[in-house]
Amino acid sequence: MKLAIIGGLAAGLSAAARARRIDKSLEILVLEKGANISYGACALPYYLEGHVRRLNQLVLNTPEQFSRQRNIAVRTRAEVTAIEHARRQLVLAGGERVRYDRLVIATGSRAARKIAGAELPNVFTLHTLEDAKRMKQALSDERPRKAVVIGAGYLGLELAEALRANGLEVVILERGADVLNRTDAALREVVSRQAKRFRVEMRFNTAARKIEAGRVDDIPCDVVALATGFEPNVQLAQDAGIEIGPTGAIRVDDRMETSLGGVFAAGDCAETVNRVTGRPMRVALATVANKMGRVAGASAAGVREHFPGTVGTALVRVFGMAVGVTGLSTAEARREGFDPVEAVIESRERPAYFWGNNSTVQLVADRSSRCLIGGFVAGERGVKGHINVLSAAITMRMRVDDFEQLDLAYTPPYATAWDPLLIAARQLKHKLEASPARR
Amino acid sequence: MKLAIIGGLAAGLSAAARARRIDKSLEILVLEKGANISYGACALPYYLEGHVRRLNQLVLNTPEQFSRQRNIAVRTRAEVTAIEHARRQLVLAGGERVRYDRLVIATGSRAARKIAGAELPNVFTLHTLEDAKRMKQALSDERPRKAVVIGAGYLGLELAEALRANGLEVVILERGADVLNRTDAALREVVSRQAKRFRVEMRFNTAARKIEAGRVDDIPCDVVALATGFEPNVQLAQDAGIEIGPTGAIRVDDRMETSLGGVFAAGDCAETVNRVTGRPMRVALATVANKMGRVAGASAAGVREHFPGTVGTALVRVFGMAVGVTGLSTAEARREGFDPVEAVIESRERPAYFWGNNSTVQLVADRSSRCLIGGFVAGERGVKGHINVLSAAITMRMRVDDFEQLDLAYTPPYATAWDPLLIAARQLKHKLEASPARR
Repeated sequence: MKLAIIGGLAAGLSAAARARRIDKSLEILVLEKGANISYGACALPYYLEGHVRRLNQLVLNTPEQFSRQRNIAVRTRAEVTAIEHARRQLVLAGGERVRYDRLVIATGSRAARKIAGAELPNVFTLHTLEDAKRMKQALSDERPRKAVVIGAGYLGLELAEALRANGLEVVILERGADVLNRTDAALREVVSRQAKRFRVEMRFNTAARKIEAGRVDDIPCDVVALATGFEPNVQLAQDAGIEIGPTGAIRVDDRMETSLGGVFAAGDCAETVNRVTGRPMRVALATVANKMGRVAGASAAGVREHFPGTVGTALVRVFGMAVGVTGLSTAEARREGFDPVEAVIESRERPAYFWGNNSTVQLVADRSSRCLIGGFVAGERGVKGHINVLSAAITMRMRVDDFEQLDLAYTPPYATAWDPLLIAARQLKHKLEASPARR
Repeated sequence: MKLAIIGGLAAGLSAAARARRIDKSLEILVLEKGANISYGACALPYYLEGHVRRLNQLVLNTPEQFSRQRNIAVRTRAEVTAIEHARRQLVLAGGERVRYDRLVIATGSRAARKIAGAELPNVFTLHTLEDAKRMKQALSDERPRKAVVIGAGYLGLELAEALRANGLEVVILERGADVLNRTDAALREVVSRQAKRFRVEMRFNTAARKIEAGRVDDIPCDVVALATGFEPNVQLAQDAGIEIGPTGAIRVDDRMETSLGGVFAAGDCAETVNRVTGRPMRVALATVANKMGRVAGASAAGVREHFPGTVGTALVRVFGMAVGVTGLSTAEARREGFDPVEAVIESRERPAYFWGNNSTVQLVADRSSRCLIGGFVAGERGVKGHINVLSAAITMRMRVDDFEQLDLAYTPPYATAWDPLLIAARQLKHKLEASPARR
């Protein structure tokens, strides 16, 4: 039995490792079209800003390690150009054919470049190690002074911070009013205030039309960083007749099986389910790719596991501030047919005598069920824990009333006696009581 | 309508504030026997170690503030010596009588001193502002060099760290094998290893018998810090005929009402429910006291609220390491009739290139239900968030299988792609599969 996996990053390698753990006798081959495997694209901004000194610090495993430690064969610079499922064969660039019994497609995504002038020399994206090298080189060779970042999603904000850390003046252009892929007025306010402290201007409702040498529309700049989202790499799957879902990514069931039996897909190229709305969604995050990959690997190895989907948790550092989001914002919840109520509070993460600063906590609940459905937290290191508690509560459809009674930890060096989450929950309860659901 | 509250710390003041919010016309009087109200006893070790410079930094509110801002009368140095419930009167030291319609008893707890020689001059506890002042004074006046701390609970470890920070040699004596009030071999190992790094020796199964001038049993020392637990202040309630529960604290229902109608109790002096075992327990933590106080205040003001109890979450700094515990340890779970399975893992809290160090995570599940019932986390700042996620999961009776699929946050500056909690959950699942429940 032979398992072939197309793609050697988070999802592909998670699938390989999981399949190997389940079945010692399986023949496993990973085909990666790039020169490197097993690196975290999420870490590239920190290389760019100078925190990570060498790119190889970001490579977690080499093909040799996979071969030696797990008996998993990995070929790099091996581009698959076609899946011939009827013959159970992959066609590689150059014509070589590779047989398989089971297949996992983990072809990932690529940076969107849908803007005139995107191919000009000083326009960068940050999706691969090569992207990072090229951009870093340009920063040190050309000493640019002004940058325009297009897009205010995760990558846009991370790129802005990295460029600012390199001493550049930075303007962020966002076509709509979303921040971190979220329609949320309170979040936009918190993030743009923080950017402003670092003298980075965020211009909303400003679609970049055209990049030219030395400018984006009427804004002069030496470099342009494109962060206008990701597009799933689905061509290969589509050409093989595999069904694509409404989000544009490969449709899979909760075992990660595609519309072709025995062919699985995982990671950025595949759809997942939003556990709050129950609807398909597309996520380009390592956490989700890893989990999907594991389930795809288990399924390919013949074990029944399932991936229930995601609530959309994400965490990002924005100019030194931690920002975590999960579930739906009020605007998104309304769009999805909920009747949302939101509370936003500020409260210290630790006592003042332990240098505690204010965090902002937003909780969103559905008025009729009183269940938590979303929120964000912005502040210091403790944000990660807060957003994870909220993510767990949303996953378990917890009501505000029960959330308010959670037994959360306190000790002065790390926390306050009333956790900010509980203060926000109290506030939200008051709001729910002030305007209860109509029957 | 007049509400009297006996006790002006966490529970008493939470009750007062909550009652006032519900009922603007209620007459509210808080009687505190000490000179200060509204201070956090949890913060006293940080005054002792020198981190908090002035004790008044720890006082959150003054009687004047309560009177001005909330129309709540507070009398300090007002000791209640009897509750005459038939007449709805309190008797104060000195003979004065105070009428009430509703009563909240929040008399707190006192440090246990059940050891011969506990009354000697260089023996200290750390329960009140006065205790802290006296101990701090002794450290600066007498420059002691050697300390013995009796008890390896929260306070014992905090005292040991504070004394060590003052330059003293410290030995901790623990009568049994518990650490942080928990029977847990893995936790004991983690904590005593950390203590050892700071050259503090923890001697287990070593009951201190007698304190004498210059020694505890055969251990020479200049000061002794007693941290042998707390005793609830229930005499007043007991004398009034109020029922005391099996833990020695005042029995209350989930509205915090005692066996006397219209009389409520909250905080260290009252029992609560362990949500994992369903059995009464006694907790001396501000988080729980605050929540009980709020419910007592609401009940006293005539609103139906309830307190569901606690899962036993606590957090402490142990020689610079954060340690959080929640639910039951394996030994405790076995004692309570569960069939526990435990996994302990070490994993980085952040990537190495963001100075991430290993955290230790222990998860305990019940074999037959597969529900999480306890665990601890030890490591850096992120411990607070981890233990809170686990606390929430235990509260919601989450199965390991669902816990493993939680959508937890990742970004390199703050987290790893596989959260340590998820790695531990995977490990625990493997163990459950290796030895499933017998039917």
